[in-house]
Amino acid sequence: MDRFLIVSTDGHAGLPMERYRDYLDSKYHAAFDEALPIQREMTRRAEEKLLLSEFNDKWRQGIEEDLKGAWDGTVRNRVIDADGVAAEVLFPDGITEQNAPPFGAGLALKPWGVDPELQWAGARAHNRWMAEFCRDDPHRRIGLAIVLMLYDVEEALAEVKWAYKNGFKGILIPALMGDREGYNHPRYYPIWAFCEQHGLVVHTHSGPSPDYDYQLPGAIGIFLTEFAWWAGRPMWYLIFGGVFEKFPGLKFVMTEVSEFWVPHLLEMMDVRASVKHTSGKLGDFRSNLTMPPSEYFKRNCWVGASALFDEGSMAVRHEIGIDRVMWGTDYPHPEGSWPKTREKLLTYMRGVPESEIDAMLGANALECYDVDEAALRQIAQRIGPLKSDFSAAAA
Amino acid sequence: MDRFLIVSTDGHAGLPMERYRDYLDSKYHAAFDEALPIQREMTRRAEEKLLLSEFNDKWRQGIEEDLKGAWDGTVRNRVIDADGVAAEVLFPDGITEQNAPPFGAGLALKPWGVDPELQWAGARAHNRWMAEFCRDDPHRRIGLAIVLMLYDVEEALAEVKWAYKNGFKGILIPALMGDREGYNHPRYYPIWAFCEQHGLVVHTHSGPSPDYDYQLPGAIGIFLTEFAWWAGRPMWYLIFGGVFEKFPGLKFVMTEVSEFWVPHLLEMMDVRASVKHTSGKLGDFRSNLTMPPSEYFKRNCWVGASALFDEGSMAVRHEIGIDRVMWGTDYPHPEGSWPKTREKLLTYMRGVPESEIDAMLGANALECYDVDEAALRQIAQRIGPLKSDFSAAAA
Repeated sequence: MDRFLIVSTDGHAGLPMERYRDYLDSKYHAAFDEALPIQREMTRRAEEKLLLSEFNDKWRQGIEEDLKGAWDGTVRNRVIDADGVAAEVLFPDGITEQNAPPFGAGLALKPWGVDPELQWAGARAHNRWMAEFCRDDPHRRIGLAIVLMLYDVEEALAEVKWAYKNGFKGILIPALMGDREGYNHPRYYPIWAFCEQHGLVVHTHSGPSPDYDYQLPGAIGIFLTEFAWWAGRPMWYLIFGGVFEKFPGLKFVMTEVSEFWVPHLLEMMDVRASVKHTSGKLGDFRSNLTMPPSEYFKRNCWVGASALFDEGSMAVRHEIGIDRVMWGTDYPHPEGSWPKTREKLLTYMRGVPESEIDAMLGANALECYDVDEAALRQIAQRIGPLKSDFSAAAA
Repeated sequence: MDRFLIVSTDGHAGLPMERYRDYLDSKYHAAFDEALPIQREMTRRAEEKLLLSEFNDKWRQGIEEDLKGAWDGTVRNRVIDADGVAAEVLFPDGITEQNAPPFGAGLALKPWGVDPELQWAGARAHNRWMAEFCRDDPHRRIGLAIVLMLYDVEEALAEVKWAYKNGFKGILIPALMGDREGYNHPRYYPIWAFCEQHGLVVHTHSGPSPDYDYQLPGAIGIFLTEFAWWAGRPMWYLIFGGVFEKFPGLKFVMTEVSEFWVPHLLEMMDVRASVKHTSGKLGDFRSNLTMPPSEYFKRNCWVGASALFDEGSMAVRHEIGIDRVMWGTDYPHPEGSWPKTREKLLTYMRGVPESEIDAMLGANALECYDVDEAALRQIAQRIGPLKSDFSAAAA
C-alpha cells in the first residue's frame, strides 16, 4: 500500500435533537416534548456562557453543509473521504452541544440529576439510530452504544447484548461514577465478561465533569485542568480493582483526553503500587494484581488521541506505548484535526518512521476493534494520505 | 552555623479523643458523649479494614512513649530534638486515626455527612487546645487552625481572626469542596484578604477523599492514585479563579502530596491555559490572569514535602522550584521520616549543594511562615544535623 489507512477513533454522530423523537419509545414522547424546549434553552445558555459563540459562528462559516455529516451518511462519507479517513469510531454528540441524545444521555452524561429511566430512554433512542446509521456503511462506521451501566446491571447487560447483536463494536460508559458503585465493584463483572468474550471495546470520552458553576471566574480553566482526569478515572478503578486481571482480554479506551499526561499517570500508579514505606500502614491492596499497574495499561488499554498532538503527545508516544495511541479527527467538532487532517498529520508526523505512523493512524485500531481490515485497506488505498508525503525528504 | 535548621512543615498533634471533651462548648457535651463510642468503633473498623493492624502494631512497638508527643509537649520536644527538628507546622490528627478532633473535623474532613454546627464545635475544640499547645513553646510550634470555610463565611472569618489573635500562623481548610461553592467563588475573598494581610498561610493536607467503599478490591490503590489530586485541587481553583491575581501576597501550601507529580501539574495548567485550537470553543477564561498558571505557583504556593523523597521528588526539585519545597517529617505518623530523619536526609541529600539543602529544610519555611528566625537558629545550632555530614566527601 502506498497510502496510510486512517481509522479515526474519535468521531461524533447524532441527530438534530428534535429528530430523536422518532427513535424513542412512544411512552416517552410526552416527556420528550416537555424536555425539548428546556434542552434548547440549556444549549443556548451553554453557547452564551460556556462556548464562545463568536468562535463557533466563525468556525461554522462555509462548513455548514459538511457539519450535516453528523447525521447524514452521504455527507459524512464525502467529508471523511476528503479528510483521508477510511473509518471512524462513532461517539454521540454530533455537533458540540447541538445534537446530543435526549435526557442527558450524551457525552456529558452524569449518573445524577436525571431519572435513570428517562436517561435510558434517551440512550436507547440514540443507540437505535446509531445501529441504522452504521448498518448503512458497516465497514466505515464503528458504532458505540451508550450503556448506562451504573444503574441496574441486568438492564445494562441486556442493552450490551442488543448492541452486540446489532453490529456495535463497543460501548460508551459513564466516566463519572457519582454516588454509584465504582467500576471496581464485582456487580459489573457480567458486563466485562460479555465485552471480553465478544470483543466489545469499553470507552470513556472526555466531557463529563462535576457541576461547576460556570458563572465563577476560572471555571473553564478548572474544567480544562481536570477534564482528562475525570475521563481517565474509570481506568484506575479497573486496574486496581483487578478487573483486567480477571478479564485479561477486556479492552478499554479513553478518548480525547490529550495524551501528554498519560506517562505521568502510569508512573503515579506504579509508584503508588510499589512504595511500601509510605503506604504500608494502609494494608494490602496489591495481592489482586500480578503485574505493575502500567502493565495492565500496556495490555488492556488504548488512548483515542484526538488531534491534540499539538499539546506534546508526539513527544511522549513511546512512553505511552506506540501500540497504545490511536489517532482521531474528532469530526465534526471544532477542536479536532478535521477538515485539515492531512495538513496536521504532516505537521506532526513527517519524518517519523512509517511503521509508527501506520500504528497510530490505523494498525492499532485494527488490533483494538473487530473490523474488516481488507475492506478498510481498499478504501484507504483510494482516499488515504500518501505515505511518500511523510518521508523527511518530502518536506 | 555548622548545623542545618530544620523546620518540619508536616507535624501532627492532637489529644486522645476523649480529652477533646474539655475543650468543647458544654452544650455539645451530650452530642460528644453520644458520638465517642461511634468514633471509637469507626476507628477500630478503619484499623481492621483500611489500616493494616499488623504493620501498625509492629511499628508502634518500642515507640509508644514517643507517640505521646502527639499531645504532650515535653515528650514532643525530646522527640523532635533527637530527630534534629527545630520547629514544626502542626496539623491535626496526632496519631493516625487515633486522635482526630471530634465530629469529623480532622484531617479527613469532608463538607458533608456531618452537621456543620457540630463539625465547627469539633474544629474549635481542637483550635483551643492547639492554641494552648503552641503557647507553651511558641517558637517551635507553628500552629494551624482548622477553618471550615465552605460553610458560613462570616463564621469562618471570625475564627480566622480569633486564630490570628491567638498566635496561629496559618489555617487548614477543607480540600474537598463537595457540593459547596468552589474556592474560585468571590464569597471567600474576605478570608483570603485577611490571610494575605496578616501573613496567615492557607493549607490543604492530603487525606480527604470521596467516600470510597473500602470493602471493594483495589480501593486503597485508587485512593493512593488520587489522594494527592484531591489535596491539590483547591490550588487550581485559586489559580484559575484569579485569587492569587487579586491577592498577590496570599500564601498557599499543599502538604504531604508527594511532590514528584507537581511539575506535571504545572505543565498541565500551562498547556490548558495556552492552547487555543483545542479550547477556543470554550471562550475566554484567561483574561483574569496576567501570568501563566505556573507563575502563580512559583510566587504564591509551596509544597510541604513530607519525607516522600523516596518517590522521586529529589529528582524534580528544580522543576518544582527549589524555593517551593519544604521538608516535613510527618511526626508522629508512620509514613514519614521520623524517627530516622537524619538517616533519611543523608540518604537523599548527601552531595546536594548546601544552599539547596538549607532551602528545603528550613530557609523556605522561614520565607513562608512568620516565625522568629533567631530563636529557631539558636535551637538548630544545638540539635540540627551537622552540615559537614552532607558533603559528598563525608560518604
